[in-house]
Amino acid sequence: MYEPDASSDLEVIPEAECLQLLERHHLGRIAFVVDGQPLIFPVNYALSHRIVTIRTAHGTKLAHAPGSNVAFEIDEYESSRHIGWSVLVQGVAIDATTALDDVSWTARGGTPHPLAPGVRIHRLAISPTSITGRRFKAGCS
Amino acid sequence: MYEPDASSDLEVIPEAECLQLLERHHLGRIAFVVDGQPLIFPVNYALSHRIVTIRTAHGTKLAHAPGSNVAFEIDEYESSRHIGWSVLVQGVAIDATTALDDVSWTARGGTPHPLAPGVRIHRLAISPTSITGRRFKAGCS
Repeated sequence: MYEPDASSDLEVIPEAECLQLLERHHLGRIAFVVDGQPLIFPVNYALSHRIVTIRTAHGTKLAHAPGSNVAFEIDEYESSRHIGWSVLVQGVAIDATTALDDVSWTARGGTPHPLAPGVRIHRLAISPTSITGRRFKAGCS
Repeated sequence: MYEPDASSDLEVIPEAECLQLLERHHLGRIAFVVDGQPLIFPVNYALSHRIVTIRTAHGTKLAHAPGSNVAFEIDEYESSRHIGWSVLVQGVAIDATTALDDVSWTARGGTPHPLAPGVRIHRLAISPTSITGRRFKAGCS
């Protein structure tokens, strides 16, 4: 599991605040591995009781993410305050479209709204093993 | 290698335009795998002749990325025009701090400016195997 670099000037964001940030935002990025190559895709998402849910069509995400370790990340740089932060969710992806486990039921309670057009009838859920965040204040240099 | 989903309503961005987008932006995300778990980190970067370069200190990125397949991504949603796009660089990371290969020399020509404080004397370069992009226009629903 990832541990923040001890040498860096980054403030750790507690998990409770990470969850608040995840609730307030709607656009993140999911990463998973296909044939040994990590990929990153921007996705609209919803949070439902610690479960990140995205909608997807048949394609790369649905073919490769379920059952695999994935990362999900959101970040922002507030230029007016010179503050940057990021939240990283590590976990396992689940095809929650019709599965009857608790994570899938929870995921279907989320209502992600994809901005990109197209029919996306499947739900992909991320069951988290770790939710961490980091924040920094930019220097004046 | 990743191929865009045929079923989606996404326009492919040609590589030349992907490179223009990479040149115009400075904040992206790098993903790589540590102990079977993909991780995503936001990073400031610079582009130098197709080579993405970031500065880093000793830590997770420098310990795990060099020699590994990595993904690098930038994205934006222009709410005024309802247009979203993303560019994905797939490739291999190289510790370009002092190496004498062509990619490392090119990487050292880039001048990334990290917003986060802290000393980052190392350069990490991504030697691309693929640079792809996708664009969509959000529907009115």
